[in-house]
Amino acid sequence: MTHEPLVAASAQQRHDGRAPNELRPVRITRGYTVHAEGSVLIEFGRTRVLCTASVEERVPPHQKGSGEGWVTAEYGMLPRATHTRSDREAARGKQSGRTQEIQRLIGRSLRAVFDLAALGERTITLDCDVLQADGGTRTAAITGAYVAAHDAVQRLLAEGKLARSPIRHPVAAVSVGIVDGVPVLDLDYVEDAGCATDMNVVMTGAGHFVEVQGTAEGEPFGRDELHAMLALAEHGIQQLVALQRAALAGAQVG
Amino acid sequence: MTHEPLVAASAQQRHDGRAPNELRPVRITRGYTVHAEGSVLIEFGRTRVLCTASVEERVPPHQKGSGEGWVTAEYGMLPRATHTRSDREAARGKQSGRTQEIQRLIGRSLRAVFDLAALGERTITLDCDVLQADGGTRTAAITGAYVAAHDAVQRLLAEGKLARSPIRHPVAAVSVGIVDGVPVLDLDYVEDAGCATDMNVVMTGAGHFVEVQGTAEGEPFGRDELHAMLALAEHGIQQLVALQRAALAGAQVG
Amino acid sequence: MTHEPLVAASAQQRHDGRAPNELRPVRITRGYTVHAEGSVLIEFGRTRVLCTASVEERVPPHQKGSGEGWVTAEYGMLPRATHTRSDREAARGKQSGRTQEIQRLIGRSLRAVFDLAALGERTITLDCDVLQADGGTRTAAITGAYVAAHDAVQRLLAEGKLARSPIRHPVAAVSVGIVDGVPVLDLDYVEDAGCATDMNVVMTGAGHFVEVQGTAEGEPFGRDELHAMLALAEHGIQQLVALQRAALAGAQVG
Amino acid sequence: MTHEPLVAASAQQRHDGRAPNELRPVRITRGYTVHAEGSVLIEFGRTRVLCTASVEERVPPHQKGSGEGWVTAEYGMLPRATHTRSDREAARGKQSGRTQEIQRLIGRSLRAVFDLAALGERTITLDCDVLQADGGTRTAAITGAYVAAHDAVQRLLAEGKLARSPIRHPVAAVSVGIVDGVPVLDLDYVEDAGCATDMNVVMTGAGHFVEVQGTAEGEPFGRDELHAMLALAEHGIQQLVALQRAALAGAQVG
Amino acid sequence: MTHEPLVAASAQQRHDGRAPNELRPVRITRGYTVHAEGSVLIEFGRTRVLCTASVEERVPPHQKGSGEGWVTAEYGMLPRATHTRSDREAARGKQSGRTQEIQRLIGRSLRAVFDLAALGERTITLDCDVLQADGGTRTAAITGAYVAAHDAVQRLLAEGKLARSPIRHPVAAVSVGIVDGVPVLDLDYVEDAGCATDMNVVMTGAGHFVEVQGTAEGEPFGRDELHAMLALAEHGIQQLVALQRAALAGAQVG
Amino acid sequence: MTHEPLVAASAQQRHDGRAPNELRPVRITRGYTVHAEGSVLIEFGRTRVLCTASVEERVPPHQKGSGEGWVTAEYGMLPRATHTRSDREAARGKQSGRTQEIQRLIGRSLRAVFDLAALGERTITLDCDVLQADGGTRTAAITGAYVAAHDAVQRLLAEGKLARSPIRHPVAAVSVGIVDGVPVLDLDYVEDAGCATDMNVVMTGAGHFVEVQGTAEGEPFGRDELHAMLALAEHGIQQLVALQRAALAGAQVG
Repeated sequence: MTHEPLVAASAQQRHDGRAPNELRPVRITRGYTVHAEGSVLIEFGRTRVLCTASVEERVPPHQKGSGEGWVTAEYGMLPRATHTRSDREAARGKQSGRTQEIQRLIGRSLRAVFDLAALGERTITLDCDVLQADGGTRTAAITGAYVAAHDAVQRLLAEGKLARSPIRHPVAAVSVGIVDGVPVLDLDYVEDAGCATDMNVVMTGAGHFVEVQGTAEGEPFGRDELHAMLALAEHGIQQLVALQRAALAGAQVG
Repeated sequence: MTHEPLVAASAQQRHDGRAPNELRPVRITRGYTVHAEGSVLIEFGRTRVLCTASVEERVPPHQKGSGEGWVTAEYGMLPRATHTRSDREAARGKQSGRTQEIQRLIGRSLRAVFDLAALGERTITLDCDVLQADGGTRTAAITGAYVAAHDAVQRLLAEGKLARSPIRHPVAAVSVGIVDGVPVLDLDYVEDAGCATDMNVVMTGAGHFVEVQGTAEGEPFGRDELHAMLALAEHGIQQLVALQRAALAGAQVG
Repeated sequence: MTHEPLVAASAQQRHDGRAPNELRPVRITRGYTVHAEGSVLIEFGRTRVLCTASVEERVPPHQKGSGEGWVTAEYGMLPRATHTRSDREAARGKQSGRTQEIQRLIGRSLRAVFDLAALGERTITLDCDVLQADGGTRTAAITGAYVAAHDAVQRLLAEGKLARSPIRHPVAAVSVGIVDGVPVLDLDYVEDAGCATDMNVVMTGAGHFVEVQGTAEGEPFGRDELHAMLALAEHGIQQLVALQRAALAGAQVG
Repeated sequence: MTHEPLVAASAQQRHDGRAPNELRPVRITRGYTVHAEGSVLIEFGRTRVLCTASVEERVPPHQKGSGEGWVTAEYGMLPRATHTRSDREAARGKQSGRTQEIQRLIGRSLRAVFDLAALGERTITLDCDVLQADGGTRTAAITGAYVAAHDAVQRLLAEGKLARSPIRHPVAAVSVGIVDGVPVLDLDYVEDAGCATDMNVVMTGAGHFVEVQGTAEGEPFGRDELHAMLALAEHGIQQLVALQRAALAGAQVG
Repeated sequence: MTHEPLVAASAQQRHDGRAPNELRPVRITRGYTVHAEGSVLIEFGRTRVLCTASVEERVPPHQKGSGEGWVTAEYGMLPRATHTRSDREAARGKQSGRTQEIQRLIGRSLRAVFDLAALGERTITLDCDVLQADGGTRTAAITGAYVAAHDAVQRLLAEGKLARSPIRHPVAAVSVGIVDGVPVLDLDYVEDAGCATDMNVVMTGAGHFVEVQGTAEGEPFGRDELHAMLALAEHGIQQLVALQRAALAGAQVG
Repeated sequence: MTHEPLVAASAQQRHDGRAPNELRPVRITRGYTVHAEGSVLIEFGRTRVLCTASVEERVPPHQKGSGEGWVTAEYGMLPRATHTRSDREAARGKQSGRTQEIQRLIGRSLRAVFDLAALGERTITLDCDVLQADGGTRTAAITGAYVAAHDAVQRLLAEGKLARSPIRHPVAAVSVGIVDGVPVLDLDYVEDAGCATDMNVVMTGAGHFVEVQGTAEGEPFGRDELHAMLALAEHGIQQLVALQRAALAGAQVG
């Protein structure tokens, strides 16, 4: 069973010339900054997110004495990453509900591919900071955070702090949506603002779902649309995982 | 195409004796408190949420002058709604990420069935406060909030403030998950704590999806499991919508 | 010496038909929710407060190592417990001065009848959440919290964690005031809003004062009025203590 | 009927040599600082509170357009006003419940003797900052704030902004308590820490009660003790009002 | 090399009659309040700051186990210390950037003359609270805090807790600026508001610089003006150190 | 008069091979991100700060109706810009004193070269976010913010919103310090951590001082050291202004 036909049936081009099932150009730069154990700049078109992985030899209270480690994430957006300047959360004194929702999603997604017992009692914190936003910042963040986490783990292995990698699978994410009635992959800001439905999908390199979050921004969507979007997402994530592998095949950095 | 067989195939009983595709006993009490324009106590088994709808003749800044209204939600949990006492968010001075995520979900779900232009420049706020928690508080909250919102709209119609209802469809929600390898409907706390995958589904009375939020708590899930869970959710939501209709068929209250 | 004549002299009826020295119908429901060690819904007319008692096997820093326990309270009001919706304190990020004043009063009132040494190094937290407000929420909260605390203590006794009850006396509270020149008992919202003087009195079952808080909202009051109000309060609290005893005489619940 | 005998019956001296019904030395210094419309340093023994009255030609939202003014108070304690240093509330980021309770009390007490309509749409803010604490800071604050408010009103009269004074009566406050079984007036820190019952009484110059706040710190108190404390308070407040009058009879300052 | 000529060349008098290189009348009152280990009221003309030194037998986390002590400062301004009332920082829930900047400056200035190892693992906290503001509150605070710290150290010596003083030098501070083209010493509020350049200088009794903070409020300033201001500051600080010595030569207080 | 000899006299090399009066390699990249009116990545060696200038057609309350504009700055540091991860200020809910001090400095420095009347009633906000920290982040921020502000002004001129530039002079900043007894220019992290004295100097392109902030971290410094540091700073700022001019001579970007 495949839902590809529904996608293929659309001959309509997108506002930037992409085919419905086409990702934006993706670029993954490892070793973008020097201090972090993993530091990756990921670009999905004009969306740019700096993902750093920091290793700390301690765990939060709920994991203390468990023998297990922890993987968590924080997300931020520079005030002028967006078209018009948004308030600085540090100045307002609190993180928005959107920020918290996204950082919880990133953290869960990464933990889903980590064997926390194999990590040992240490924490990997993934800081995902958006330098420039053009739609899909949370999916770029997850995809880049995986690469940063991988580099941090490699360093722990190289230093002999870990005997084997606690990473079980790659993990990557992409958005899909229904724009003008057509299911499309990897929405940019213009498409995101105009779409009827927006779905973020997180999958492992083994082809299993970690998160599926679909929201009807306008009209509620039917089962067929849901299937078409899931198929598109699978298609996109396979490519993203291949790009992660290619990036990690380069020399160890940082 | 149906995924029912996968569900029906399971002969295994759940810890409380329910069949995999069986909801907990649902009770909807309208007019539970006297001041609010809509006030509903909804019970999904031992989970009890008080949902009130408050009408205010003003809109938030982003809607001012638009001619459109707004529907929003706030969510809270009494400190001892849970097995062990949790901190009071008002005392800690901030709402947790979980609370914000849930109230944003409730708000989006209700807005999805509202014609905001037909509501006019007024706001309906849905306060969903959990008196007792036993799993599924967010889905109970959405299901109850719809009934409270409906009562508030009826009052506006009765008072001549609205000529026609801005509600386009009922909306209800339910959780589904994979427990011990079996897809089950409407998880209680014990099942939720032990499940591999947890999914919250929000649908309209017309059978369309408003939100699909699936999370692999343990093992990532495959496409077949996803389909089985979606089918269960559809099945459960049809019953919840019928229960909403029955409750609303009673005399107007409050 | 008695001040009853002053009360009895008034033939004037109150807006809801009560005599000046008459309480609203009081209802005490034990075991209202299932998780807390004590859980009581108390109703003073249309005022409804859910009082839960939670036992935790630890004490705040100032009691650590003292061998003594602690009894404390938190108070909250659901946003739509009131005629018009009030802001949610958790969303505003802080508790109002009024909230803090009330929860400090409830805590002091309960501690006044507890032998903290006999309680041992554990804490009983009384959460008093107003589901519906119609005047007198703090006095209902104290009266209900006592019953919840009693149930929690009974459980500790039943579990063998306590050898004898640390409760020395019942404690209950009521409001009194001067409305249209007449001292009246147990003011509802309408009377409270219109009264010249408002006094909250907390007494033990042994007839002693724990707290006396009288405030001239309009005209300052004389010594005779003060005495008349105190007499009314004593009269009302005796009845409340009898109602507490009757409620506790029922089967152990929860 | 008088309760004086009960007081007089005690031959026991207090730790600082005072008789049970004796105030500490009270000193009222007007014009203590130069900028405020009223600025008073009040001393009750070693307790020293700086009370300033600030006039602003605007009112808070709830009074806008009412034609009425507003009188409000804020209370603070310098970190080292106390025996051991306490946290600075501005650094901790919030006022304690105690602080809020006290400033609400001061505000209500002053409003009780103000004709807000005669004040016109302006606000008088009374800042009461404790420079040195030795018990009774809230009662000293109320007593001093009255003098500061009076000076501010005199300035408004002198400037022709008011035709007549909106002050109807003096207002003053004192604490009373039961120490070692004896009712005593104006407790200092040592007595306050050791007393069984503590009561703060606010009265007008006309001899009426504005606030009565009695708290059993240890043993609940009986009706006779309550009467004895009220009589002591009346006695002390008459002296404080005389001292306020004497201070105000001096030359206008500031 | 001296810059005095530039100063002396100005025959112009200041608005309060002072010569350009003249301090305001300085008064230092030790033992101003009774509880603190050091308590000093310092007055620079109408500017009055209460500086208390509190000794606590513990250090902040970053010094724990180092064998070294800590010296820190907090700064506050009473709401009506100023011409018009300013918001109370405790009520607003946070300290302004200005407050934090000043208290960091005071702390650094005092630490510069302390031998933290000789202090031992204890903390001296300098609370500088402005009772009345007329320009130069931060420089008065530093100058007064030194005297308070000295008294606290004397007490530690007297109690045998310290064998020798950890204070290496006196430290004092003064402001200088360019007013109407003329470099002047110790600006009051009127001069501060109107000056083109404002500089705060902190020096030790040995004539070395601890802090130099010059800001062009209007026109940027040249090297000659900078030198002239530094010379004025040196001149003023020598006098302030002499006044500190004179004050400390009086009897030990508090 | 020149202090160059003192600098030149030192033959000692720095840990990274620089001469005492040598800047780190400086790189200025305009148009680094696409949305902001000015967007500059500035690098002082390994220190990298992204400076964006955002134009908004409104002013803060204190400038409303004045006909004048406003220039302000905010500063942030990504959590892993540093050697070890620091807390995210948005997550902690407040900006540190250090952050506030720096952003106030950047704002004042830029305002010093702006003719606010010529800017008109609009605001330029300079967001300076540190992507990688290695000492001198505040001086890099000021130097880069000037270029971003210039680009924003050029856009306003190009759009005809301004007739002439409100910028009067370039402005740049550099740090100087005493390391191992030698005055050096542009300290990196290692030098900053080990230096006795640290001074930040802000100057205009016309060679005047805007800010001089010198702090003795260890030993207080003498007048000669102060002069030597000021001379070094002048020397460095002249080069920075030349680099700003060269960068701005490239094609208009963004």
